[in-house]
Amino acid sequence: MRFDIITVLPALLESPFAHSILQRAQKKGIAEIVVHNLRDYATNKQKSVDDYQYGGGSGMVMSIEPFAACIEKLQTERDYDEIIFMSPDGVTLNQSTANELSIKNNIIILCGHYKGIDQRIRDIFVTREISVGDYVLSGGELPAAIVVDAVVRLIPGVLNDETSALSDSFQGELLDAPVYTRPADWRGHKVPDVLLSGHEAKVNEWRHEQALERTKTRRPDLLE
Amino acid sequence: MRFDIITVLPALLESPFAHSILQRAQKKGIAEIVVHNLRDYATNKQKSVDDYQYGGGSGMVMSIEPFAACIEKLQTERDYDEIIFMSPDGVTLNQSTANELSIKNNIIILCGHYKGIDQRIRDIFVTREISVGDYVLSGGELPAAIVVDAVVRLIPGVLNDETSALSDSFQGELLDAPVYTRPADWRGHKVPDVLLSGHEAKVNEWRHEQALERTKTRRPDLLE
Repeated sequence: MRFDIITVLPALLESPFAHSILQRAQKKGIAEIVVHNLRDYATNKQKSVDDYQYGGGSGMVMSIEPFAACIEKLQTERDYDEIIFMSPDGVTLNQSTANELSIKNNIIILCGHYKGIDQRIRDIFVTREISVGDYVLSGGELPAAIVVDAVVRLIPGVLNDETSALSDSFQGELLDAPVYTRPADWRGHKVPDVLLSGHEAKVNEWRHEQALERTKTRRPDLLE
Repeated sequence: MRFDIITVLPALLESPFAHSILQRAQKKGIAEIVVHNLRDYATNKQKSVDDYQYGGGSGMVMSIEPFAACIEKLQTERDYDEIIFMSPDGVTLNQSTANELSIKNNIIILCGHYKGIDQRIRDIFVTREISVGDYVLSGGELPAAIVVDAVVRLIPGVLNDETSALSDSFQGELLDAPVYTRPADWRGHKVPDVLLSGHEAKVNEWRHEQALERTKTRRPDLLE
């Protein structure tokens, strides 16, 4: 699977893709993540990629031409399944979208900045607009990293322990039960007895009850 | 405002905090972002920060002791308003939470990994659990960066143009209207005439209609 990310801040994305699971997925050849500097596709002398917005108002708008040039160059090299624009206006990312994207081959992600991108980029090129949540961020770079992380970890072979991804919160309908590790007693705060009992059926029952209780309390919407 | 972020992957957070608005906020002395390596607080020889979970099952659990040691050291240095644990079980981040956090002085953020953190850390230390959305990620680092970005850009003096943050999507009830910049005609795709009219009242009316229409179509829940 390949991600091409187009951004004015390629340096911002250096460290998130160079560590942990994303690093491992790339080393294993399972995922390829290529970050493109939008400024390399600027058509004017100043290498500017934004301009004042028509109709007036504060905030710069990212121009159509550099994005178009970068996307069209990539499209001569391979077919893309999706061109995603990270935007607070998009469809909110959830685990089901992450699952769906994890079986695609080639995805382009556009990172917005400033007051947004020229609407024609969205109308002409973008196949899907995704929001990571109802909050405003400085740009689409962290959201792009979120999408790549959520998707790549689902590709078989990326996680060491494949059962681990399947038992995460949001893959089932319930939040995870509480977890504990050593010491069994920390300054008087003890691990629940049942977890020390060695009785597997009771442990499973306790975990299910706890997961249900936590979901009821915190996220009743997941049970509807 | 100061953020202390406790993580096993400090390197992952290097570039997100070193660019753009977060870099500017730190240079101006408005925000201080300190990343702590949890392994520096490991108490055993192997410098391990996780262990098998009680009750069995796949996935390691982060131990209480290193987190406790780092948090308690920080608490001797200053008072903290919040100790936030980034978790898919937490309350979903929205703009109102970001606004609320932006008037705090000192915040600790704990980044989870693997199968989770020992429940006692959450019971004893954590004041608030925040999720950035309903999807599973490799760890709490990108979510921590999301919170810092969403919050810091709201502090007065961080953005160059203060009106810009206020007119973003989610600060009002509506999504943003489409935006356009030059050229007015790109391969036959034209900017709407009204934006070229120079008639401010008409422009404002069009923008309001577009914002309303986009919100009705994409996010009717925001209008309820």
